[in-house]
Amino acid sequence: MRIDIITVIPELLESPLSHSILKRAQEKGILDLHIHPLREYGIGPNRQLDDYQYGGGAGLVMMVEPLAKCIEKLKSEVDYDEIIYLTPDGKTLNQSKANELSLKGNLMLICGHYKGIDERIRENYITLDISIGDFVLSGGELAACVLVDSLVRLIPGVLNDGTSALFDSFQDDLLAPPIYTRPYEYKGWKVPDVLLSGNDKLIDEWRYEKSLKRTKERRPDLLE
Amino acid sequence: MRIDIITVIPELLESPLSHSILKRAQEKGILDLHIHPLREYGIGPNRQLDDYQYGGGAGLVMMVEPLAKCIEKLKSEVDYDEIIYLTPDGKTLNQSKANELSLKGNLMLICGHYKGIDERIRENYITLDISIGDFVLSGGELAACVLVDSLVRLIPGVLNDGTSALFDSFQDDLLAPPIYTRPYEYKGWKVPDVLLSGNDKLIDEWRYEKSLKRTKERRPDLLE
Repeated sequence: MRIDIITVIPELLESPLSHSILKRAQEKGILDLHIHPLREYGIGPNRQLDDYQYGGGAGLVMMVEPLAKCIEKLKSEVDYDEIIYLTPDGKTLNQSKANELSLKGNLMLICGHYKGIDERIRENYITLDISIGDFVLSGGELAACVLVDSLVRLIPGVLNDGTSALFDSFQDDLLAPPIYTRPYEYKGWKVPDVLLSGNDKLIDEWRYEKSLKRTKERRPDLLE
Repeated sequence: MRIDIITVIPELLESPLSHSILKRAQEKGILDLHIHPLREYGIGPNRQLDDYQYGGGAGLVMMVEPLAKCIEKLKSEVDYDEIIYLTPDGKTLNQSKANELSLKGNLMLICGHYKGIDERIRENYITLDISIGDFVLSGGELAACVLVDSLVRLIPGVLNDGTSALFDSFQDDLLAPPIYTRPYEYKGWKVPDVLLSGNDKLIDEWRYEKSLKRTKERRPDLLE
């Protein structure tokens, strides 16, 4: 999978995209990641990227021209399956959307900053608006990292243990059950005995019941 | 506000927490951020942090002892308003939760990794489980960055323009209206004339209508 990210703050993306799972995915050649500093497409000697809102109001808006030029240059080199704008008013990311996007070949991600991007970019270039949740961030960079992480880990070969991702929360609309590891006892706190029983059927039943109970208590909406 | 983050991969947190808004908040003395590498509390010569699940199954579990020791050391030095575990089965973060947490004094954030943390940590130390959305990440680090960014930007004095955050999406349960900046025309794409009218009342009405329309089309659930 190839992912291109357009950003005003390329430095912000450095560490999340170069450690752990995403590092491994790139080393294995499964993820081909390119960061494009929008500043290179800025206007005039100051490489201007933003300006005041038409109609007044607080906050600067990312100008249409630098983004249009950057997007068009990339489109002339690569066929993108989706050109995604990370924005709080987009479609909310969930596991099924991550599953779907993990099957794509080439994605372009655009990180908004300041107050957001000029609407004309959205109308003319963006094919998919994605929000990672009902809250506002300083920019789309963290949202882009979250999106990349959530879908790249689903690509076969990225996680060491191929079955691990299948048992995550949400893959079956249930939250994951409680988990325990050694030692059996710490400060008097013990592991539930069923998990030491060696009886796979009992353990599966216990985990399913705990998953169901946790989902009912915390996220009944997932069961509807 | 003081925020302590416990993590297995401190390097991953570096760039998101040291640029843009979060950099400024720390320079202004508004945010006092501390990263605690859990590895320092690992067990034995290999500084072990994780082990296999009781009951079998894919994925490693973060052991109770290193986390307990790290949390207790921090608690002996600071009074925390909340000890937060970032987990997909937690309470979903939204703008009202971010507003609420932005008023706290001291927060401890715990990033899970691998399959998650031993349930005994959750039962005995965690006061609040937070999920940033219905998807699974490689670890809690990105979720912690998202949480920190979403709430720190709400603290008065962090954003340059004090009124800017109040007009973001979700602060009034409506998505933000389209925004535009110079030039007026690009490739034949024009800015809506009302925004150039200079008539504040008309502009406010237009923005409200666009917000309402966008919310109805994309997120009718916000209007319920």
